[in-house]
Formats: sequence, C-alpha cells, structure tokens
Amino acid sequence: MKIAIAQLNFHIGNFESNTAKMLEAVKTAKNQEADLICFSELSTCGYPPRDFLEFEDFISLANDSIDQLRQAADGIAIVVGSPSKNPVLEGKDLFNSAFFLADQKIQAIQHKTLLPTYDVFDEYRYFEPTTEHKVVAYKGKKIALTVCEDIWNIGNENPLYKICPLDELIPQKPDFILNLSASPFSYKQADTRTEIVGSNVARYNIPMFYVNHVGAQTELIFDGGSLVMSPNGKVFEELPFFEEAIKVYDLDEVIKGQEHRPQPKHKYAMIQDALVMGIKDYFKKLGFTKALVGLSGGIDSAITAALAAQALGGENVRCVLMPSQFSSDHSINDAVQLAKNYGMPYDIVPIESVYDSYMKLLEPQFKGLPFNVTEENLQARIRGMILMAFSNKFGNIVLNTSNKSEAAVGYGTLYGDMCGGLSVIGDIYKTEVFALAKFINEEKEWIPTNTITKPPSAELRPNQKDSDSLPEYDILDEILFQYIENRKDPQDIISMGFDPAIVKRALRLVNINEFKRYQTAPVLRVSPKAFGMGRRMPIVGKYLS
Amino acid sequence: MKIAIAQLNFHIGNFESNTAKMLEAVKTAKNQEADLICFSELSTCGYPPRDFLEFEDFISLANDSIDQLRQAADGIAIVVGSPSKNPVLEGKDLFNSAFFLADQKIQAIQHKTLLPTYDVFDEYRYFEPTTEHKVVAYKGKKIALTVCEDIWNIGNENPLYKICPLDELIPQKPDFILNLSASPFSYKQADTRTEIVGSNVARYNIPMFYVNHVGAQTELIFDGGSLVMSPNGKVFEELPFFEEAIKVYDLDEVIKGQEHRPQPKHKYAMIQDALVMGIKDYFKKLGFTKALVGLSGGIDSAITAALAAQALGGENVRCVLMPSQFSSDHSINDAVQLAKNYGMPYDIVPIESVYDSYMKLLEPQFKGLPFNVTEENLQARIRGMILMAFSNKFGNIVLNTSNKSEAAVGYGTLYGDMCGGLSVIGDIYKTEVFALAKFINEEKEWIPTNTITKPPSAELRPNQKDSDSLPEYDILDEILFQYIENRKDPQDIISMGFDPAIVKRALRLVNINEFKRYQTAPVLRVSPKAFGMGRRMPIVGKYLS
Repeated sequence: MKIAIAQLNFHIGNFESNTAKMLEAVKTAKNQEADLICFSELSTCGYPPRDFLEFEDFISLANDSIDQLRQAADGIAIVVGSPSKNPVLEGKDLFNSAFFLADQKIQAIQHKTLLPTYDVFDEYRYFEPTTEHKVVAYKGKKIALTVCEDIWNIGNENPLYKICPLDELIPQKPDFILNLSASPFSYKQADTRTEIVGSNVARYNIPMFYVNHVGAQTELIFDGGSLVMSPNGKVFEELPFFEEAIKVYDLDEVIKGQEHRPQPKHKYAMIQDALVMGIKDYFKKLGFTKALVGLSGGIDSAITAALAAQALGGENVRCVLMPSQFSSDHSINDAVQLAKNYGMPYDIVPIESVYDSYMKLLEPQFKGLPFNVTEENLQARIRGMILMAFSNKFGNIVLNTSNKSEAAVGYGTLYGDMCGGLSVIGDIYKTEVFALAKFINEEKEWIPTNTITKPPSAELRPNQKDSDSLPEYDILDEILFQYIENRKDPQDIISMGFDPAIVKRALRLVNINEFKRYQTAPVLRVSPKAFGMGRRMPIVGKYLS
Repeated sequence: MKIAIAQLNFHIGNFESNTAKMLEAVKTAKNQEADLICFSELSTCGYPPRDFLEFEDFISLANDSIDQLRQAADGIAIVVGSPSKNPVLEGKDLFNSAFFLADQKIQAIQHKTLLPTYDVFDEYRYFEPTTEHKVVAYKGKKIALTVCEDIWNIGNENPLYKICPLDELIPQKPDFILNLSASPFSYKQADTRTEIVGSNVARYNIPMFYVNHVGAQTELIFDGGSLVMSPNGKVFEELPFFEEAIKVYDLDEVIKGQEHRPQPKHKYAMIQDALVMGIKDYFKKLGFTKALVGLSGGIDSAITAALAAQALGGENVRCVLMPSQFSSDHSINDAVQLAKNYGMPYDIVPIESVYDSYMKLLEPQFKGLPFNVTEENLQARIRGMILMAFSNKFGNIVLNTSNKSEAAVGYGTLYGDMCGGLSVIGDIYKTEVFALAKFINEEKEWIPTNTITKPPSAELRPNQKDSDSLPEYDILDEILFQYIENRKDPQDIISMGFDPAIVKRALRLVNINEFKRYQTAPVLRVSPKAFGMGRRMPIVGKYLS
C-alpha cells in the first residue's frame, strides 16, 4: 500500500482555497499511485477555527468541503480533518473528526478523544470527546485513525487524561497508525514530537504516519515536520519544516525501516525560519504586502526589520528613523546601514518639533513638574503615531519590535513602541535576541556589529541605559524563564541562587504589567509559553504584586 | 438549623484580605447564632484565578486560608470554595472544590462536576471533573453541596453535559442544597439564575441556598443577588445586587416558605449599577483613585464620565476637552456643562497646534496626497496621547469611551479614542447607550439633552456624521446583536428582513476588525456575549470577510 502525506498551509475559514489545495494534492498523490492521502487536523476549515465553530453556517461550509473531497475519493482514499456535528443532544455540539473517504463515500469517521485545553488550546470549549474507537479497513489493511493529542497521553509522568485511545484501537490489530495533527511550533516541539511518536511506536510496535499542518495563523506557527516512523522506532523520514510538502511512502518499506534520519534542529535557525513564516503568512492571509518598522539603531528593531526583509523582501519593508535630541549619532548611522544592507527604503523623521509642540501645549498643566516617564513615553508615542500615520497613508502594516524581556517587565510604552499589528520578537528574551542576531550574522554582517555590541538603551533621556532600571539581562532573563516558561514559584527561583530582592522585583513587574500586555499585538509564538492566548492572567489580581 | 449566606467581594490572589473578610463574616454569623455559613465559589483565591492556578505556591496559599478557616470552624460549620489538589496522577492536577469545615476539621470536600468551558469560562483548562457525590451530614441534617455550574444542566433543551450531579445526590436524601457560585452578571443573568434555581427546586423538591460572589474582577462583574428558594418554588429571599451582604435564615421557615419576593430587575438600572461597580473595583483593586476621560461633547464620553463620577466621585474624574478646528461650539459647551453637573474638574487643551506640527513634519512624505482617514486618525491619536500624558504625569487611569457598535465595526482609532485602561461601555450598543443616558436623566438632566439628541459624529472632518459611514444605528445594532449575541448566520439575519448588502457589509466589518479589538482595553461585560475573553476569533481568518 502506498500512503501519501500532505502537509499544507491552510487558511482559517477559507474553505474555497483549502479545498482547492487538497483537491490538487489528491491529484498529485493519484499521479504517484498513492492508495491513500492524509491531510492534517481540521484541514477543511483551518486550525484553530476558534469561535467561528459556533456558527452553523461555518460547519455547513466544512461539510460542503467534505462533500467535494468525497467525490474526489475515487481510486484513492482521502483522510481529512473537519468538525462534525454531535448527533446526541447531551454534551458539546461538535466533534473534532477525521473523515475517511473512499469509493466516493464517507467510509468512517473517527472523532478525537483527547481535547487539549491548556496553553493556547481551547478544544473542550467546542468539542465533545469521543469514547468510540474503531479501526478502518481499507484494501486489506486496518488503519488506526487518531487526531493530534490522541497520541500524546503516552510517556508522561503526569498524564493529563485518563485514557489512551490507542489502547482501545491496538487490540483491533491495525497495520499502521495515521495521526492528523495541528501541532504548533516552539523551539522544543520538533524534538518532543519525535519523542512522542517514538513512545507510541515503541509501545505498539507498528508504523506511524504523523501529518502536521504547516503555516502560520496569526500568533500560532505550524512548522510541518511531518513524521514517518518505522516499527523499529527510527525516523523513516521527516518532512521539511516551514514549507508545504506531499510525499508518498510504500508501507512495506516503512515497516522494513532504514537508518534513522531526522532533520537537524538548530534552535536559532528554527526560530528564524518560524518568524519569517509567521510574518509572511500574517501579511499574505490578510492581503497585505508591505511592512513598516521604526528603526532606532538598537538590536530589537534591527532584527525585526531583518526578519521582515527575509519574509517580504527588503523593498517591501519601509523603515522610519525617528531621532530625538537623545538619539546618538551612531544609532542613526547603524539604522541607515541596516536599511542599506537589506535594500529597505527609509525615511528620517526627527521628532523634536512635534515633541516641542506637545510640551508647549501641556505647559499650563505640567509647569514646574520634573521631567519623568511622561516625557519619555511622549517620545515613544510620537514615534508610534508617525508609524501609524505612514501605515494609514500608504497601507503598510507596522511591525511591533518589543522583545519578551521588555514585554514581561513592562519596559515599553503602551501606544508607543508597543504599537503595531504583529509582534515579531515578543516571544524571544533579550539574550535570545542577541543570539539570533549573531546567528543571522554568521552568513555576513547583515546587522551592524555596533548594534549588537553596544549596551541596550531606550535613548529617551540623556545617557540612559536599560540596566539603569532593570537587572542585567542575563540574570533577568533566567528569572523570567523560570517564572514564565517553567512556572516556578518565587521560593524555587530564589533557591536556585538568585538575589531574593531581584526575584521579587522581577516577578512583581511581570504581574503588575499584565494591563500593558493585554493591549498589545499578537505575539508570534516560538517558545513553550508565549504571552497572549496561551497565558491567561488576571489584571486586577493581587498575587506577587 | 440556622444557615448564613455571605456574598462578599473577594480580590483574586489577595489571600490575606479574602481570608480576613471571611473570618469577620464567620464572627458575624456566630453572633447571629448561625449553625453554618456558606461562601461563594473559589472564595479563598477569588474568581477567576486563571493561570495563577498553575503555580504551586498559589495553591499552597489557598490551602493556608482553608487552614485558618478550619481553625475558626468552632461552633459553626464553614462552607468555602477553594482549589484542591487531585491526588490521582491521571487527569488535571486540580479540583474546584467546596470544603465543609466543622469542629475545626475538614469534614468533607465536594469537587465540582460540571466545568464551564465556553464564553468567558476556562474551567477545564485547570480542573478535573469529579464523579463522586456524597451528601454531608451535619447536626442531624444532610446537605447536598454543589459548585456553581453543577446545578445548571437542568431545564435545557440542549444540555452541555451528560450528567446532573444532583441526580446522584438526591437519592441520598439531603435536606437542602447549598450552591457556591461565581456567576458573572449580564442584564439577563439574574432572571436566568432564578429560573435555573427554580428548575432544580421543582425537580428535587427541597430548598436551595445559592451563594454568589459579588464584585468586579477586571471585565467580569459579579452581581451577587444570592438566592434562597423554598421547596414551593418561591423566592424566599434574594440578596441585594452589587453589594456585600450576610444574612441568616432558619431552615424550617425556608421550608415552610412565604410569598414570592424577587427583586426588581430593570435592565438599565442593573447595567448602570454593574458598570459603576466595575469601575469602582477596577480602581480599588489596582490601588488607584482617579480617572481621566476625554470629553468630546458626544454621548459616549458623556456617559462614561457620568458613570465614573458615580463610581469614584466627580472630584476624582478629571475631564479633558480637546477641540480641533472640526469641533462644534455646542460640543464644547455640552462637555463643560456635563463636567459642571458632576463637579468634575476639566481642562481644555486644543489640539490644532500639535496637529499642525505633525502635518508640517510629515509634509515631505504626504505632499500632494489627499486628506483621508490618516488625518482623522491623527487627531484621535493626538487626543489619546494627551490623555496618556496626563495619566503618566498625574497618576489617573484613562477610561476608554468606545461603545459596542463602534468596537464591532472598527469605527474607532487604535491608540486614539480606543486607548484607556478599561472600556466602560464597550459592551453596550449605541442604541443602548442612548437608553442608558435617558435612564440616568430620569432623575435630573445630568447629561445635557443636546448631547443625547444631536446626530452622532466623530467630528474629525467638516460636517461629519456617523451615518455617512455606517448604517443607521437602530438597524446596525439589531444586525450586530443577531450576529454577536445570537450567533446567527448571515442567511438567518437576511431572512429576518434586513437588506442583504447591509448585513454582508456589517458582518464583514466585524470580522476584519478583529485586529483592533485584540489591542483594546478589557471591556466591562454586561451582555451575554461581550468582546474580550468570552469571544475568541481568529485575526487572519477569512470567513465572511
């Protein structure tokens, strides 16, 4: 039996293009004499469809797609993910289903059992878990159909669910496992995924075809990297990351196995490619082509612009340099150099005149009061407004340049440098930003060295440095990582050897700045715990604050 | 047996104040010779604690509170809601529990069975549902303990769950039902709640004591209105809305019953009181006392300021009038009159000089291009920046003045009039804003009549009216209500008699403006479907857009 797996870039709610893409893939697979083609989870409607699922019309459109695919399932079986209605009144109204289409019929539907409802996932919000598991017979083989999380309750010390669907399916003696996934990227996920698929294969001793979604949906980036694993636990093949792919495998050969051949998984190479795809798909799926970045001469805006240039082409990334009286000459020079390196058009728009006009306007109220964060924020907000004016006039989307360390401790100005439609590096700590810049510069000096080596500064008052207000980033970032990614308690972090006063201050800053993060752009997620939909914190909470 | 119910205003994560408040209530109840006192759901940690629940330390602090209450359970039983650890490895790590404390011991713990995971609720994200149900014996009586949603799977045509916990408990012959709730307000909720409690009492024929949380937690407003219902289905008593209350009842008298005495539930009176509590608690729980409102002379900012004045006192609401060349004289006069009516201090800060300085600065790039939405947004953003500068300098929180109709169709400027820490009327359609203004003016002309009667205008270009860009609000709001609250499909709405072109355009505007709503302040929720945490939509989706 020949099995095709197709990792495709779907668009949420765009049934027409998703269906067309699958029909095209079916043709390709048939040309290569595949007996079966498998797509990723919820591929008719795109993943995650979120509250669109609450509309009857949306479900009807998904059913229409299934119907078109059913008609195409002629001489080939098609396995496709789609929502389906729960006929039982009690319980949620929908299932998250894998449809098995063959001989132009719906031959079987296997619903998802384990519904991830943590971090970025909300599946129990919409779906009823199934308790029925039946293998599908096709061309003399028996197939165990599973949907994403259904294979993830294995090999954990602290399992989230009480059952393993494959424990129900394996006694029915399937020949292989198909898994339809939409598993979002983090820099750890590809390794974890290989481990989990490996745990299943080791436990059940049959081959697995794991088909992942590829493409970005706002903040969630799906990296592809679909896996074919032989019963010997070796990776038969891993599909490429961050691109569409259709590949046909001979089941007998997969069962026989070959040498283990996983792809390399370099942290910063993967982060770079993930962010580039994140930017590209955000623009493409919204119908935009041009970005705007405010370049300060600092590393955050430099790397944001660099990634945007990789994603959209340098000519489509307009840079705006907005110096004030506090900007150093080298900042402007560094920013200009960066723009030139990527062929990005740039404007220099000094903000002093507008700043002065605000100060004059506000004089009656502010007279006699000292320069403070108000005037600093004013500069950042003038810059935000200039970017938004360019955005409105010329139709470019402003990219937000905040990093994760800043976003965590609230070191940024709401409606100022925190503006923009998409946060590109908001899930990357400052120390990781440096590492990513160095990785990008391994090829050539894309980012001026001076931008990387100078001490970070917001340049909002004379001789300002980030370290005036914050702990050094190598310490701060480690504390933040333990708190945010690892959800460690303050006492745990202190016992790792950090200064209790710094720990307390850092955690307090994280918690009291929830209100700022609430109002910022979606953050491209590349870590196991990003700000945004996967981290839900009270604003008026009084905990560690 | 004498039963005390206490609806108190807890603060998420503020274990010290929550525990002190409960200990004080225990004293009060003991003074009134109560045998038992019952608090609301998750009262140790406040509701909803959200991802704070993922910290071990947070759960320990909740356990410490339980321990303090246990020691106080001397001569009185205390029923209190708190998270508790699931000792079984499989499944989620926590339960949402009701602790029954008596004789200084934990006598029983009943975990929640039905975990709401829809709209604003995320309970299955954290909690394992229980399958065990046991009545608690105390002083010769048997008590059925239930937590919030546990009583809500009754009387529905399309139940969300497969079981009713009380169906398990009633065969054990309890004498009464206690329900610990944290049920957020909407203008329909108090009626629905009475119906649901009634359905339970009718089905099981025993009295119920329903204890609700009162107070606002960022966007969620808990209205109290705790209910005591006799077996005859009549409301024995309903506790007040929007204030703390402790009340002791004699079980025999409740069983005997008296005339039905529910409270009046006027839609706009309740919305007004809800929003006032929402503002009050947002400020109090964050440690602020003073608000800022940008007054345009229009109805949205007028009503926002009026509600803020009710919540914080007029002297604590600083108004800023920021006229441009497009502002009409009557707008300024109306705004000044409103400020005077409530004793609110006000500043007049004309924006023309700053606007001119921007236009001069941007001339090299904008030369020859026509006046468009860029210049309109610029005005709105200058106003936003002035408000934020005042906020930074004087420590006032800016209140957002957008209404739900605007927020729905994106008729507002990001970082401009959409700025602010809290959206006061973002869950109220424009037509409801008018109705609320009229309700407020029933007492006296608080809001200048001219503000209510003139045609809505953003005053961002000469002679602009909202109806130039949008359908009339009475039509638009009805379409939005059908789509947002009722989740009707386009075809359903059209078949109600609306112009297909207007329906299509309105729904498209809602969907393409998700990116704006993503970046705005939390919205005080007063309807069954508010923007924010309860409505989760893809930004890059391509559905009805």
